[in-house]
Amino acid sequence: MKNIEKTAVILMSGGMDSAVCAAIAKTEGYEIAALHINYGQRTETREYQSFVSLSTIYKIKHKLSVDVSYFSQIGGSSLTSTDIEIESADFDRKVIPASYVPFRNANIISIGISWAEVIGAEALFIGANQLDSSGYPDCTRQFLDAFQSAIDSGTKPETNIKLIAPLLDMTKKDIVLTGAGLGVPFELTWSCYSDNALACGVCDSCALRLRGFHQAGIEDPIPYSIKPNYK
Amino acid sequence: MKNIEKTAVILMSGGMDSAVCAAIAKTEGYEIAALHINYGQRTETREYQSFVSLSTIYKIKHKLSVDVSYFSQIGGSSLTSTDIEIESADFDRKVIPASYVPFRNANIISIGISWAEVIGAEALFIGANQLDSSGYPDCTRQFLDAFQSAIDSGTKPETNIKLIAPLLDMTKKDIVLTGAGLGVPFELTWSCYSDNALACGVCDSCALRLRGFHQAGIEDPIPYSIKPNYK
Repeated sequence: MKNIEKTAVILMSGGMDSAVCAAIAKTEGYEIAALHINYGQRTETREYQSFVSLSTIYKIKHKLSVDVSYFSQIGGSSLTSTDIEIESADFDRKVIPASYVPFRNANIISIGISWAEVIGAEALFIGANQLDSSGYPDCTRQFLDAFQSAIDSGTKPETNIKLIAPLLDMTKKDIVLTGAGLGVPFELTWSCYSDNALACGVCDSCALRLRGFHQAGIEDPIPYSIKPNYK
Repeated sequence: MKNIEKTAVILMSGGMDSAVCAAIAKTEGYEIAALHINYGQRTETREYQSFVSLSTIYKIKHKLSVDVSYFSQIGGSSLTSTDIEIESADFDRKVIPASYVPFRNANIISIGISWAEVIGAEALFIGANQLDSSGYPDCTRQFLDAFQSAIDSGTKPETNIKLIAPLLDMTKKDIVLTGAGLGVPFELTWSCYSDNALACGVCDSCALRLRGFHQAGIEDPIPYSIKPNYK
């Protein structure tokens, strides 16, 4: 007899980190409910493709894709406004990069919690990563802890949803190694901030990904237009 | 010479509470940036009308209306799902009513904070009310305090946005009296949960509003199809 499985909502962008998150949630015994958020980012078509492919591979029955393109109306980020340029990678940058979408994670976690409360999920997984990230303020332990308190007090008393960020303190190298160990199909994921057919290889996201694969000693299976040797 | 004014984003549904909030913010010297959220609620057309009328009256230049109708996809509330009935009012109800939209305020506050961060606003006003409300968990001091921490840690270090809920501990009577004192055009506001031409008079929202006006000794200027005498 099959046990009733516990459910987790996974914020699944289609990127490498969310794919590793999904693999971890499965390993921990969760039935996955995959939530894709279209926030009007330049790369949405490509990301949605990855979301669909990953959902098929992971045999996810419960999936939801929502449109929050109001982020394009709000603007303020190179990911959602075409009049702000995508910066080239800079591992030593001291300021928050132009790709920062103001308070984005609060928005997407809120959507995930709303859905989790309706379907009775016990956890929400997010692929946030503070160590090898671009320095976004909404990707920190402090922010996620504060948000957990908001979840606890802002949902019904009988609702208990745990906000889980399993990659938070991992390096990209660790994420690649963990994903590889769990058989994550990296070839289906998409991380680049540009909207070209091939990953650009030079934006923050490509650079962090390529450096992670390099340090893990694994070849990144997706095609790049330029593939610098980040160390 | 005109001083540079400080700006506050006001979550302006078009209801009585948000109109009073706007009036309070103006009194406190804020330039208003009005944010209307269409979350796929049954009464959106009527609420949007109120938002536009109020924006005109208050001479608001900076306004934004965003569509987050994903709440209809998520469901779970009588306000967004036509297969869940609008309950009649019950002041002694001990459970959270069917109108509760799961974690709604976290979603709409997050949108407001994203916009506030982009336009450099110093405050976000929300008309949440815990005393004479329907018992929603995301309308409590505890929730708003936790959310303030999430704002502080999840936005840029140089961003300082205060989450202000001036009506939180007021009764509806107090809100009516405060609004009347500030000349709020109550005839332009809309509170009813049903989508009829006249306010129904029997849903939670109508009942709380009518009782508030009654207790304040002021006549509610909007037309009702039924107007019970709540005391």
